[in-house]
Amino acid sequence: MSIDQQTSRAASAEQTLAARYHEIRSLTEQLCAPLSGEDCVVQSMPDASPAKWHLAHTTWFFETFVLSRAFPDRQSFDPQYQYLFNSYYNEIGDRHPRPKRGLLTRPSIDEIYEYRTSVDHSMREFLKSPVSGDTQNIIETGLHHEQQHQELILTDVKHLFWCNPLRPAYCSAVTKPTSQTVSMKWVAYPKGMWSIGHAVEGFCFDHELPQHRVFVNSFALGSRLVSTGEYLSFLDDGGYRRPEFWLSDGWDTVQSKGWQAPFYWEQRGKEWWLLTLSGMRKIDESDPVCHVSFYEADAYARWSGARLPTEAEWEITAREMPVDGNFVEAGRFHPAPPTAASSSSPLQLFGDVWEWTASPYTAYPGYQPPAGALGEYNGKFMCNQIVLRGGSCATSQTHIRATYRNFFKPDARWQFSGIRLVRDV
Amino acid sequence: MSIDQQTSRAASAEQTLAARYHEIRSLTEQLCAPLSGEDCVVQSMPDASPAKWHLAHTTWFFETFVLSRAFPDRQSFDPQYQYLFNSYYNEIGDRHPRPKRGLLTRPSIDEIYEYRTSVDHSMREFLKSPVSGDTQNIIETGLHHEQQHQELILTDVKHLFWCNPLRPAYCSAVTKPTSQTVSMKWVAYPKGMWSIGHAVEGFCFDHELPQHRVFVNSFALGSRLVSTGEYLSFLDDGGYRRPEFWLSDGWDTVQSKGWQAPFYWEQRGKEWWLLTLSGMRKIDESDPVCHVSFYEADAYARWSGARLPTEAEWEITAREMPVDGNFVEAGRFHPAPPTAASSSSPLQLFGDVWEWTASPYTAYPGYQPPAGALGEYNGKFMCNQIVLRGGSCATSQTHIRATYRNFFKPDARWQFSGIRLVRDV
Amino acid sequence: MSIDQQTSRAASAEQTLAARYHEIRSLTEQLCAPLSGEDCVVQSMPDASPAKWHLAHTTWFFETFVLSRAFPDRQSFDPQYQYLFNSYYNEIGDRHPRPKRGLLTRPSIDEIYEYRTSVDHSMREFLKSPVSGDTQNIIETGLHHEQQHQELILTDVKHLFWCNPLRPAYCSAVTKPTSQTVSMKWVAYPKGMWSIGHAVEGFCFDHELPQHRVFVNSFALGSRLVSTGEYLSFLDDGGYRRPEFWLSDGWDTVQSKGWQAPFYWEQRGKEWWLLTLSGMRKIDESDPVCHVSFYEADAYARWSGARLPTEAEWEITAREMPVDGNFVEAGRFHPAPPTAASSSSPLQLFGDVWEWTASPYTAYPGYQPPAGALGEYNGKFMCNQIVLRGGSCATSQTHIRATYRNFFKPDARWQFSGIRLVRDV
Amino acid sequence: MSIDQQTSRAASAEQTLAARYHEIRSLTEQLCAPLSGEDCVVQSMPDASPAKWHLAHTTWFFETFVLSRAFPDRQSFDPQYQYLFNSYYNEIGDRHPRPKRGLLTRPSIDEIYEYRTSVDHSMREFLKSPVSGDTQNIIETGLHHEQQHQELILTDVKHLFWCNPLRPAYCSAVTKPTSQTVSMKWVAYPKGMWSIGHAVEGFCFDHELPQHRVFVNSFALGSRLVSTGEYLSFLDDGGYRRPEFWLSDGWDTVQSKGWQAPFYWEQRGKEWWLLTLSGMRKIDESDPVCHVSFYEADAYARWSGARLPTEAEWEITAREMPVDGNFVEAGRFHPAPPTAASSSSPLQLFGDVWEWTASPYTAYPGYQPPAGALGEYNGKFMCNQIVLRGGSCATSQTHIRATYRNFFKPDARWQFSGIRLVRDV
Repeated sequence: MSIDQQTSRAASAEQTLAARYHEIRSLTEQLCAPLSGEDCVVQSMPDASPAKWHLAHTTWFFETFVLSRAFPDRQSFDPQYQYLFNSYYNEIGDRHPRPKRGLLTRPSIDEIYEYRTSVDHSMREFLKSPVSGDTQNIIETGLHHEQQHQELILTDVKHLFWCNPLRPAYCSAVTKPTSQTVSMKWVAYPKGMWSIGHAVEGFCFDHELPQHRVFVNSFALGSRLVSTGEYLSFLDDGGYRRPEFWLSDGWDTVQSKGWQAPFYWEQRGKEWWLLTLSGMRKIDESDPVCHVSFYEADAYARWSGARLPTEAEWEITAREMPVDGNFVEAGRFHPAPPTAASSSSPLQLFGDVWEWTASPYTAYPGYQPPAGALGEYNGKFMCNQIVLRGGSCATSQTHIRATYRNFFKPDARWQFSGIRLVRDV
Repeated sequence: MSIDQQTSRAASAEQTLAARYHEIRSLTEQLCAPLSGEDCVVQSMPDASPAKWHLAHTTWFFETFVLSRAFPDRQSFDPQYQYLFNSYYNEIGDRHPRPKRGLLTRPSIDEIYEYRTSVDHSMREFLKSPVSGDTQNIIETGLHHEQQHQELILTDVKHLFWCNPLRPAYCSAVTKPTSQTVSMKWVAYPKGMWSIGHAVEGFCFDHELPQHRVFVNSFALGSRLVSTGEYLSFLDDGGYRRPEFWLSDGWDTVQSKGWQAPFYWEQRGKEWWLLTLSGMRKIDESDPVCHVSFYEADAYARWSGARLPTEAEWEITAREMPVDGNFVEAGRFHPAPPTAASSSSPLQLFGDVWEWTASPYTAYPGYQPPAGALGEYNGKFMCNQIVLRGGSCATSQTHIRATYRNFFKPDARWQFSGIRLVRDV
Repeated sequence: MSIDQQTSRAASAEQTLAARYHEIRSLTEQLCAPLSGEDCVVQSMPDASPAKWHLAHTTWFFETFVLSRAFPDRQSFDPQYQYLFNSYYNEIGDRHPRPKRGLLTRPSIDEIYEYRTSVDHSMREFLKSPVSGDTQNIIETGLHHEQQHQELILTDVKHLFWCNPLRPAYCSAVTKPTSQTVSMKWVAYPKGMWSIGHAVEGFCFDHELPQHRVFVNSFALGSRLVSTGEYLSFLDDGGYRRPEFWLSDGWDTVQSKGWQAPFYWEQRGKEWWLLTLSGMRKIDESDPVCHVSFYEADAYARWSGARLPTEAEWEITAREMPVDGNFVEAGRFHPAPPTAASSSSPLQLFGDVWEWTASPYTAYPGYQPPAGALGEYNGKFMCNQIVLRGGSCATSQTHIRATYRNFFKPDARWQFSGIRLVRDV
Repeated sequence: MSIDQQTSRAASAEQTLAARYHEIRSLTEQLCAPLSGEDCVVQSMPDASPAKWHLAHTTWFFETFVLSRAFPDRQSFDPQYQYLFNSYYNEIGDRHPRPKRGLLTRPSIDEIYEYRTSVDHSMREFLKSPVSGDTQNIIETGLHHEQQHQELILTDVKHLFWCNPLRPAYCSAVTKPTSQTVSMKWVAYPKGMWSIGHAVEGFCFDHELPQHRVFVNSFALGSRLVSTGEYLSFLDDGGYRRPEFWLSDGWDTVQSKGWQAPFYWEQRGKEWWLLTLSGMRKIDESDPVCHVSFYEADAYARWSGARLPTEAEWEITAREMPVDGNFVEAGRFHPAPPTAASSSSPLQLFGDVWEWTASPYTAYPGYQPPAGALGEYNGKFMCNQIVLRGGSCATSQTHIRATYRNFFKPDARWQFSGIRLVRDV
């Protein structure tokens, strides 16, 4: 959460904030609409959370960081929710253990929707008057926070449905766009000193700051994402049986977990099928490969004679591109082949799949987390994680930007994560 | 399941069977009525199952063992249910892994109720015509099976609610009966040869057979269950900190699990509270102690200078008593103090709490499991388990009898299990 | 440990005790002679102990229960040894955790031999004067205790060598006796009331008491142990892949541990080899099958249409037989085929392999453990274990008798444990 | 392993290589001299290896990568050693599992010394003739590899002795040098572009290459290591109980492992004692703090208002300093206070303790691992590890340099690892 760099805003902007509040909060509920109360309560693994918990926690965020600060005497909707729906803020206090979020059959989903209604009502009232720049920034953070959880609702329910032998579908399939067969090209960038990090007007998270200088060697970026067909060649070449392509921890993971293909792939006779949010279907070789871990992305890159981009390399190329692509707004919830014909610019940098970089998640030089509980938002996770960039088909277009840093453990596969290559030139 | 010893029944008995089918099936649904869809889907530990699963599995039993045998061409309600709702019958085929029963948000609870309605309809039609003795016996088994799962629904939902910091209540409390302060007396039985096992008319499970002779030394049975107040004295005497009272495996369990009191007990200041199905309340010293493991029952007995009864000792005393007591029909769902004043006969042998015996669960001499899948009902579990006797406040009165054998691992605590003492005389 | 039933002994018996002390203590050292210091220090699994620990613990037994009681002012060899070499006596105090016994590279093996020499010297002096009947009994217990650890030294070092890809040999092979092909016969015993438990003169452990009456149905005992060839037929018939033969916990174990044959078996091409204390060799179909768990013994019995004997059945047959057989004294350290031709009496009841019974390990009616720390010797283990009878090729002939009860968890395989069958008749 | 940058050497250099071979190989044996065969065989945790394994594996390295390449027909000392003593080279083949290295009581320690003698003899013969530059480089790698294992022998035996309640000493204590009380100063470095990585003549590992440009902001380096007294203030200020100082994974580790102080610290009354290789002693507040994980180093830095240096910052400051300090050659095996009075240059950059940097272990831009098995030496570990710099009191002075990169998991504590601070200026 970045506060200092935000300028004060006029009343018109406040109207916009109220409108955006309404819009983003509504989308969360729209995304949960296809889910039953039963779908909303179960936790299919410790890394995932029930949709009900996401619905409550995002509401808790506004109640805790906005309403109870603005109105210290305000009665909370339910005092026990502070314990139940705190995610990881030690400064706020103790909390319900993460792996046990799925045991909360009470409060009911209906009560959580009442909770949302109640907090939304208070927020709407609150936003009728001008709010300070600091508060605006906290609300902005809360909205981006909610957008992050919207993506998690989709990835967590996908995981839940994978655990069900019936392989349910979350929604019906959207007609596929007419795709282009686009051969992989290599877009070259010269060596030099670059400034990395957020610098323009508008919201960013604390860890996108401060802008700082980085020297980068010349490199060439793969013009599109690695496709399912390309990844299949790696599989067919024994990729999951040959340790020479893998990091040591990656190879240990392949063996201990018995990985033989990307997550959500299932062999049916000689064919590979995969789970989408619209149910099972045959893999489409022109789709970007998806649901691979960092280990798989890195092994694929090494097999192919390339490597993964560093954060800096990725950002250098992405900031020249418009934030366009296959986002959650498309309602497809699955990556798609490039729609444009090949060009001199790289394609698919935004949307479709999060792109694993080669960069461990660390602080930018001079990074300072904000004071207070929101200082726990990002900084304390800067260890044992890898940065991903660019957003996915489950990300809001209004949420993503070139400087945006996402991060997951290197063995995580349940996000929409894929592969972008670079080469030294 | 015992078939051979069942005599054929007249048409009137068949009407009774239909009536009992209706009555028992309805009770299952009544017991689930206070639960939401969310309550019904979650699995709080591998030993427990979601209520939805119990509702489906008991229905699967009749579909699998009665309808699809009687009507080989009958279309099953959903062919995937055979996989989803088989519990442990290897002969029926593969099944959904037990620890993952809580991931099945689909089929929905509504679909499962439709499944019940559909199977109940077929069963009703089927029972309009006379059925063979064998089939009657299978249906009887299915009804007793359903009664077992009714008890599990209650104990599993109690465990689920314990996992919830809100400590929800399943129902409101029933007014407590006027209890009697009954001092512990010792009812003596002479040594001699006894016949143990089921011998009278009526249903029994396979493992209650064959009746066989056992030589038993003289002993004296405690005239009532061990009370909460008595158990509290053990606690206050350092019972959970003194290894000399415990079996070696029990002491290891106390230490590794950090046990300090019976399950569902919670210290609030200087008081002990406990969870009931009507919510949290202060312990009542006159109630029978409940939710203790075999290890705790055995340690308490040793501390008190007594011991637990063998199966044979328990059965010798119980078969002289009427099957009367605090059962599920009372709607109390919690053990209660003796209502009768002390007498020369032991009290509380049936109902209130299952009584841990000193006997590991083994086959009676000459025991033969029935042929086919129902042979897996009991026999394959005859290892690493301890026999409990007498039924509990969550058992149906029509389900229990003096020869009835229940069994659980020695560290199990989530059943309504308590302590009966004996002494050598 | 049984004290009360021991009669007082004359001085001549005391001389015998000194002689037996010397003989048994020496055998322990003889059994360790083939082992290097390195062999003596490593612990290959939590259930096994290093030979050095066995050498020290058996010495600690005499120091703790004899010398420091007889001479309260005696200076212990090393005060820290009380902590290091206490096995499980809570009354003696805290102790080094069992799974960490293999971390004690100090004290060195040489220091432990000095410890033995020092304690043996004191014991020799002590035994020059008459000792009380109680003390005699404790010393007897210590000697039988040492004989138990002698057997464990052999089984634990066998396990250690199995963990080594070099498959070292502990000793060279003893020439095999001329064996007889003995067909399995069934020796019948009539139903009736029997007295079970120790009743004659001489030492026994506490849990062999009190003698008590048991009613036993008629049965027929297999005339010899199940052979390797017979067990191979079970294997070849898919024994390890067919759940219908297995107890539920047994089948879970087969699957989770990937069992496909008895322990120490290794497939080489189409042949089965096994590890003996003389190294690897091809299985010999005429040898008794060995290193099977209770689960395997029980499954084999069910597959073969028989069952395992109860403790009582075993004891009834064994007490008519002389304590003769293939014991540790033979130096073979491996079971052998019957040497006698078939007869009307059962063969191999003593020695060769411990015979799994169908009986969980429980207290005999009226059992009382002795007061004090030695009360922890047996009684606290009476849960989750199965009784084995008859001794093995690693047992001393002077250690075993018809009433002797050994016990292990049902999945234990590293002891010399095999299969005796019975049938109902 | 770096090959390309190595220039060819004259015959005199080859003599030097033979001499260095002898010297380094001898030191390994000297370091093992205080250890018994028992000390040499036990593995106290999966991360540590027995000294015998280190002795064998370093020998295997020369046999595998030098002798068997130079003499393809040479008979190996024992063909099974290739399996037993391969550490992690997939290209060489399968190997004995790392966590089971401690089960190898055979081959004996004497056989391993024979193995060393045999390989050393062959190497001595081999080095009498000129060898190619490539081979020289492999031998150099083997010698540095052996020096790495020398350090591990010391840290692994320290861990082993910690696991022993007797707290044995590896050696007697060396007289402590007269230390200076040196206040912490901050030595400033200007922002700018720096070249990082190995560039001078002489050996380096592959991952120190290629030299590359990095832009670094201005910073100030703490003039000495963080002392035990300073770290004690962190402890006394509740450092291990206050999550606000910790990375999220660090705080989880503190809680799950119950950390309350650096490794090897033990509270005795109100005093802290620690284990050294000379046995237990009271902590000395002037010593550098040691045996802290990255998590603790990072938390301490945050508590103190500073941070850990990046690799680049550390290297910038270190390459101006001579490679001088408290190394293994001093025989102290414990960090010591600064001996020089404070100066304008930072102290203790080399020796004493490895200094945790803020940098995850990743490839330098353009990094290429060498072809073949030696390509597995470093590159495949570039994930989930943190870089440490500067060597320790267990490192050879001839082994370390300013560009040297060591790496361990962030929770590792059994190495001699400590804390250097930096501040932004």
